[in-house]
Amino acid sequence: MPDTAPPAAALLNAIRAVVGDRGLLTDSADTAAYTEDWRHLYQGRTSAVIRPGTTQELSEVVRLCAASATPIVPQGGNNSMVGGAVPNENGAELILSTARLNRIRDLDPVDMTLTLEAGVTLKAAQTAAAEQNCLLPLSISSEGTAQIGGVLAVNAGGNNTVRYGNARDLVLGLEVVLPDGTIWNGLRRLRKDNTGYCLRQLFVGSEGTLGIITAAVLKLAPQPKEIAVALCGVASPEAALDLFTRFQAHDPASVNAFELMSGTGMSFVLRHIPGAVLPLEDESPFYVLVELATPRPNANLRHVLEHVLEQALAAGTVHDAVIAASEAQRAAIWKLREEHSEAQKREGASIKNDVSVPVSKVPAFIARATAACEALMPGIRVVPFGHMGDGNIHFNLEQPAGAGAAWFLARDHAIMDAVNEVVRAFDGSFSAEHGIGRLKPYMMPDWRGGAELALMQRIKAAIDPAGLMNPGKVLP
Amino acid sequence: MPDTAPPAAALLNAIRAVVGDRGLLTDSADTAAYTEDWRHLYQGRTSAVIRPGTTQELSEVVRLCAASATPIVPQGGNNSMVGGAVPNENGAELILSTARLNRIRDLDPVDMTLTLEAGVTLKAAQTAAAEQNCLLPLSISSEGTAQIGGVLAVNAGGNNTVRYGNARDLVLGLEVVLPDGTIWNGLRRLRKDNTGYCLRQLFVGSEGTLGIITAAVLKLAPQPKEIAVALCGVASPEAALDLFTRFQAHDPASVNAFELMSGTGMSFVLRHIPGAVLPLEDESPFYVLVELATPRPNANLRHVLEHVLEQALAAGTVHDAVIAASEAQRAAIWKLREEHSEAQKREGASIKNDVSVPVSKVPAFIARATAACEALMPGIRVVPFGHMGDGNIHFNLEQPAGAGAAWFLARDHAIMDAVNEVVRAFDGSFSAEHGIGRLKPYMMPDWRGGAELALMQRIKAAIDPAGLMNPGKVLP
Repeated sequence: MPDTAPPAAALLNAIRAVVGDRGLLTDSADTAAYTEDWRHLYQGRTSAVIRPGTTQELSEVVRLCAASATPIVPQGGNNSMVGGAVPNENGAELILSTARLNRIRDLDPVDMTLTLEAGVTLKAAQTAAAEQNCLLPLSISSEGTAQIGGVLAVNAGGNNTVRYGNARDLVLGLEVVLPDGTIWNGLRRLRKDNTGYCLRQLFVGSEGTLGIITAAVLKLAPQPKEIAVALCGVASPEAALDLFTRFQAHDPASVNAFELMSGTGMSFVLRHIPGAVLPLEDESPFYVLVELATPRPNANLRHVLEHVLEQALAAGTVHDAVIAASEAQRAAIWKLREEHSEAQKREGASIKNDVSVPVSKVPAFIARATAACEALMPGIRVVPFGHMGDGNIHFNLEQPAGAGAAWFLARDHAIMDAVNEVVRAFDGSFSAEHGIGRLKPYMMPDWRGGAELALMQRIKAAIDPAGLMNPGKVLP
Repeated sequence: MPDTAPPAAALLNAIRAVVGDRGLLTDSADTAAYTEDWRHLYQGRTSAVIRPGTTQELSEVVRLCAASATPIVPQGGNNSMVGGAVPNENGAELILSTARLNRIRDLDPVDMTLTLEAGVTLKAAQTAAAEQNCLLPLSISSEGTAQIGGVLAVNAGGNNTVRYGNARDLVLGLEVVLPDGTIWNGLRRLRKDNTGYCLRQLFVGSEGTLGIITAAVLKLAPQPKEIAVALCGVASPEAALDLFTRFQAHDPASVNAFELMSGTGMSFVLRHIPGAVLPLEDESPFYVLVELATPRPNANLRHVLEHVLEQALAAGTVHDAVIAASEAQRAAIWKLREEHSEAQKREGASIKNDVSVPVSKVPAFIARATAACEALMPGIRVVPFGHMGDGNIHFNLEQPAGAGAAWFLARDHAIMDAVNEVVRAFDGSFSAEHGIGRLKPYMMPDWRGGAELALMQRIKAAIDPAGLMNPGKVLP
């Protein structure tokens, strides 16, 4: 069992001897930013934030913590939506930051592989790839501060999953410091390697509960030569799905993103976000943002967009559509999508559900979940948006106009339960891309209980028998 | 510890009560085909082959075996190259065949998902997908008899890894019977689902040592509208790599296969395979088979091939090339590649190495491994061929002309060691796509020893504490 008393001074001194003064923060002014999650759900405490400069240093720190049964919270960019990277309130947990493990070790443009350390930000990794005419095909809204170690630990998703999969689909190799401090060097750059159990996929998505990812080998893709974006007004999620199948049938390898927005959500963006303008003649019940991209030369993606959209207009699937004619217009269309969360916040209190269902079930899911929420709370405003191309909908709810925020938020569990009941009816997931963290372990027995959760607990016990790695996260 | 005595009659009677007479084979005439691997490396024994008709039946059989500490060897199509699916010689192990779990449960052409049972052959699964205008993008030479359960248990690779990845990259969900007989139903069809550890990727590639895959959800791709194939004569593996980067830079999403062959291997095919004809004017030191395919309409892939090959001819990368003008010509070109193993067998004794290195290292690997083998055995004939696009080379060696087969094969370990030393120098894999099975566990401590093997052993002990699942496979 991990210790619940604050670590002894002797341990911190031993750690300081490994990482030096710059590698150890103990003043609460310095550690404050590490103990609170960015959604302000949790206010943890710690006696120290440790910032090793190398994998070897990190390994030695973990070994010292293991010897004294001191629990560790690994932290990257601290962008978790579910409190996955902050310590609890008793002050016994030390924070182990990967921020200084920030070297790009290798980029091979022939193999299309990028070997880099956990503390490199996703943005810096994207930039390094682009400089070699490659693409790191993962994009999330926190990419400026999200670190690769955290991105992999939570199996980040984002906008391009429809084409490139999630973070785990990009991982060829890992370096991991295990709970006893041992370094596992699995940084292989191979496309085929059937030599025993696939350990890397166990650590990806384990949210720091099995070990600390210190470096990785990622697959890259060729940089696109063309990108084309359209915004389309559609009558319903059914119409959006029809449009999706048209693009998939036409040229699936070029569909980079396929995002759904509701008229309600768009109205919030147009009302609250300075400079936001709808580039269509009329408002619509739903909108689709579709982005095509390809490294092929002379693909004329604008023509492809026009061709598919003309057919969809003729079939009545699409009311109206606009194709970005410039980089500025493309950015303006994306902004309408990306400001959905911010606009919702400005409109009032909201309840968020990061759920997924099979892509073909998205329209039925939205219809049934909307009806369930409206039955529960007349006047509630339903704001579904997100990654329709991969079935991941942020099914968010906004307080009824004029209702009190506190009154609304006090009903969050009832509303989330109503949404989740519909998710379950479609064999969906209650946490599509944000993970479990500290917020949702209580849901695991209900959703993943029985054989599945028992297997996870056996694996946890086998790899981290003392339970020192990110305690209280993922598993109940 | 598993029992080493043959199972008691009481157990077989209890199993018969679950699976019925048609589900239990005990006559040695009936079981013989199950106890020997197709390479004839091992002659195992068993008192019964159990063929359950449903997952529930299979679960009950495993429960009975667990209760009596009877070890189980799961078997699909019995195509293992490494003796992974046959029992040992003591007769204590029962064979559990998935052959009768052969239903396709669901195919959703919008979601592009195929839900099917473990005993469906890969060929039948491909056909089911094609009937719905979808592609199951996995192709291996044993696909006519290989069963999906085995294909996933060994993480099969094959010709299209360069584009679609390996079997594990196609798996969205699994149903698995665990070593105690519990059924884990993880048959989710979701593209995003971050709810705890990724168990499916642990079972994929575990070669039946952690549980028995009884059903799966696979990702499909749209069926190609065009396929184009060329055979090219090149001077060297370096030239082949240059050609690969040209195709990847041009239109990577259409590169379906990129296969390398040596002039030596091709000469064996032309000599021994009836009807084999080289469709080029001159013989060449090496050959490349490149296949492009796309679901895009009007892609004119023949023009793409011509364009890239013209540039490669002008640059001196390619000596000569031919583009298949018909389906018959395409099949004839593929036959030159696919008959390599058969032709080698007819030429004489051979030693096989299924290895991989990073794609960019293939030319240097071939040069150094060739030199190492020739130094060890003057006159040895080096026959490298395989999946250059994913770095997986079958680095095969043929006996020197006139040498005795037995004399040659007696030196197989020395030759394999020499090849593997070069593989290791390039951080490669000693088993790229064939797995470990019973043939290669002894190599694991040397190649994957330390933290990696220790983790695997902990996981094995956590999930199969009695060691009843496919004993003696994968782990030493």
